[in-house]
Amino acid sequence: MPLCYDFKMIAYEYEHFKNDLQALQKQCAPFEADTVLAVARGGMTLAHALSMALDIRNLQSIRAESYDGDVPRDTLSVSGECDLNRSHNVLIVDDIVDSGRTLSVLIPYLRARFPHCTFKVATLFTKTTALVQPDFFVHEARDWIDFFWEKDYRIE
Amino acid sequence: MPLCYDFKMIAYEYEHFKNDLQALQKQCAPFEADTVLAVARGGMTLAHALSMALDIRNLQSIRAESYDGDVPRDTLSVSGECDLNRSHNVLIVDDIVDSGRTLSVLIPYLRARFPHCTFKVATLFTKTTALVQPDFFVHEARDWIDFFWEKDYRIE
Repeated sequence: MPLCYDFKMIAYEYEHFKNDLQALQKQCAPFEADTVLAVARGGMTLAHALSMALDIRNLQSIRAESYDGDVPRDTLSVSGECDLNRSHNVLIVDDIVDSGRTLSVLIPYLRARFPHCTFKVATLFTKTTALVQPDFFVHEARDWIDFFWEKDYRIE
Repeated sequence: MPLCYDFKMIAYEYEHFKNDLQALQKQCAPFEADTVLAVARGGMTLAHALSMALDIRNLQSIRAESYDGDVPRDTLSVSGECDLNRSHNVLIVDDIVDSGRTLSVLIPYLRARFPHCTFKVATLFTKTTALVQPDFFVHEARDWIDFFWEKDYRIE
């Protein structure tokens, strides 16, 4: 029997993003975040957009990657740096919660380093099977999402 | 006499960005950066795009703001954090070099903290009158640029 992959690839265009951003902005607004923390790389464009839509000047990023090249690693590592010493309500922003492993490592790491902060998570997509769910999201993901920042910049 | 403002506003759309990215990617490639450092907020979307186009996983950000609200401040402050201890060739990414004040403070700050790194700067636009010029850029800016990440996410 040949291996059979039965999944759809959804092309997520800039126009989709622009519409979804409005919905996500409305959900996030009551949290009154003073800081937007992008999870690099996937969350960078969305975090920029949300920081503009919500008018939050304190925009930073952190790295948390579970893959080295295309090979899954056993341990997920948080790297990069952020300074949340003067922050209170921090909106963590990523493109998608897939397995949820990133958030399951990142959130305890941030809470331990910055115990005075309240953290909430905003994403465009989430999977119901994820270990951790975002506080704010727009879509449930059933298929593979090909975000415009993945597909539009590829050098052919 | 009424005050007269004689400037043009150029709407910079996502389609322009996508085209310009290819040109900028080609300029930056020979530098062989191992790290992309976004200047928040303006450089975040471009830094994300360049990190994807150049296939550079180490994407971080730093803050350097000369304005508090709409009021220019006398002193420009670098804030946020980055970790370049294991980096060598760092591509600093911003949307535009306007006065050049941001770079004139940020580059010496980074060189002092991470003297083992080589830094180069990539932007979409620059002004000929700026204090510091980027190493790589696509356009000379004569007018006010209304980037899509400024205009598309505004809540009306």
